Amino acid sequence: MVPPLALTMGEPAGVAGEITAKAWRALRESGPGFFLVGDPALVGGAPVRLLESPEQAASVFRDALPVLPLRLAAPVRPGHPDPAHARAVIGSIETAVRFALEGRAGAVVTNPIQKAVLTAAGFRHPGHTEFLGELAGDGGPPVMMLACAGLRTVPVTVHVALADAVRGLTTAMIVQQGRIVAAALRRDFGIAAPRIVVAGLNPHAGEAGTMGREDIEIVAPAVAALREAGIAARGPLPADTLFTPRARETYDCALCMYHDQALIPVKTLDMDGGVNVTLGLRIIRTSPDHGTALDIAGQGRAEAGSLIAALRMAAEMAGNRAKETGR
Amino acid sequence: MVPPLALTMGEPAGVAGEITAKAWRALRESGPGFFLVGDPALVGGAPVRLLESPEQAASVFRDALPVLPLRLAAPVRPGHPDPAHARAVIGSIETAVRFALEGRAGAVVTNPIQKAVLTAAGFRHPGHTEFLGELAGDGGPPVMMLACAGLRTVPVTVHVALADAVRGLTTAMIVQQGRIVAAALRRDFGIAAPRIVVAGLNPHAGEAGTMGREDIEIVAPAVAALREAGIAARGPLPADTLFTPRARETYDCALCMYHDQALIPVKTLDMDGGVNVTLGLRIIRTSPDHGTALDIAGQGRAEAGSLIAALRMAAEMAGNRAKETGR
Repeated sequence: MVPPLALTMGEPAGVAGEITAKAWRALRESGPGFFLVGDPALVGGAPVRLLESPEQAASVFRDALPVLPLRLAAPVRPGHPDPAHARAVIGSIETAVRFALEGRAGAVVTNPIQKAVLTAAGFRHPGHTEFLGELAGDGGPPVMMLACAGLRTVPVTVHVALADAVRGLTTAMIVQQGRIVAAALRRDFGIAAPRIVVAGLNPHAGEAGTMGREDIEIVAPAVAALREAGIAARGPLPADTLFTPRARETYDCALCMYHDQALIPVKTLDMDGGVNVTLGLRIIRTSPDHGTALDIAGQGRAEAGSLIAALRMAAEMAGNRAKETGR
Repeated sequence: MVPPLALTMGEPAGVAGEITAKAWRALRESGPGFFLVGDPALVGGAPVRLLESPEQAASVFRDALPVLPLRLAAPVRPGHPDPAHARAVIGSIETAVRFALEGRAGAVVTNPIQKAVLTAAGFRHPGHTEFLGELAGDGGPPVMMLACAGLRTVPVTVHVALADAVRGLTTAMIVQQGRIVAAALRRDFGIAAPRIVVAGLNPHAGEAGTMGREDIEIVAPAVAALREAGIAARGPLPADTLFTPRARETYDCALCMYHDQALIPVKTLDMDGGVNVTLGLRIIRTSPDHGTALDIAGQGRAEAGSLIAALRMAAEMAGNRAKETGR
């Protein structure tokens, strides 16, 4: 059996406490079981049971939200992040990752953080994903995947200016990420022969070089290299027609060349059930596909759909990986 | 009453004849009425009535597809475009536009063309839209709008390499197109106070300048100028969350900074019912949002949903414009 999932605290002034309680109510009967690593005072709207170890979570999950307590240093004002909480927010991530590395948690699911507040407190990583790469990397870069019902996408370049994404795109990074994606689809998503499509950088994938040479000179060689490595890759294909209902049925993941090319289709289809998955780690990590929602914090209006989808996907991935590795 | 719509022939070797017959069958009872400007031999699967003038179309539409004949110079092989047809393909567009300019057609709806074949025969325009701009321009550039149920988008830069779209983006072109879009939403779509959102160029709209300065230096001043002109414009907004179901309810058109940013959300949502609309012309022009589909030409498998949506939208726009101008 897969151990319970470790859920991090996220930004205390955001909606994390609220959506955590809602997710527990939605999943308490059906599972998957999870426990929060954080301050129990953040959780409104659900009975809480304090744990001393992750192993206690499974037996209490049906009756109460299991919490491994990690107290905050200062009171919380909803909507107003406080750098005094940074140490605990980071500590929650570190603790959850440690449990997953030790096999005591099936996966790490992270609540959204407010990066600027952590940065002000000395956090030096560009984001959540990069921090997880440092804590639990697997030799290569962490790879960001967005997933919703019927569609998975990966942006090969992520949080950089579009001009830099165009200038910085290389065949090597497309190949490296394509290999990580193919391996993850096999190991964590239970897809024996994953089909990967690669989106063109330019409109109409450059239309035979008449609208930019990058698709011929950079993207096409990457597709060829992936195919030589035995991966069923196709492309570069025009991005605008790559996410139609019929096109989506023809592949398991679309490798996209920049942030919005990958994120627009997933969020257009299914914002509330979108899940952010980090591939290329020694652990499984998912997170909801939204931010801290400071503007509606403390009002009871936050929707937990994306967190619930993230918990379910993490459990499914953990189950597949356990089968694959014979654990 | 709005006169019937003029439908162009499009590429004879593609699916135009087939989808024209299917559209007639779908619309013969309900309307809107239309007539084809083209070779009657292309139409399979519908009874045809030859016209001498557009005015005869309305009375026959219920019983047969009205065709203003324009004969091809050579036989047609489905899937194999022939430059010998170029003169008639271009002539069909010119004739349909002339009828619309004269008020004898309510709008022009264009079947897809195969640009490379026309180019080989001496056609010097970058595309359909630019040719229409020359035939029926209104002083400014023609503006491309994509529309499906619940979403309209406009790419401010269109058929250029992504690097050139980034480099070439100017405040002036965003403002000019925003004004054309606002005017068209009022006149042709019946929206008294149109709400326009402007997508950021960079991920997260640049996140306060940390991922590219263009959103601060180029896009934001354009939004300010549109607002000064009395247009309800907002932005730059992060493009990835701009097309969620909830976000889509907050505006009438999204101004996007490049081709795929505008086309991905529309085609992801509704490929078969997507319509391409050209704004900024003296006539109304729509077209289906797909190509000539040479690969399935002559097989009876083509779907007419997008052409039907284009015909319906053209008729609705023509009705609004007639009301607006008191014709």
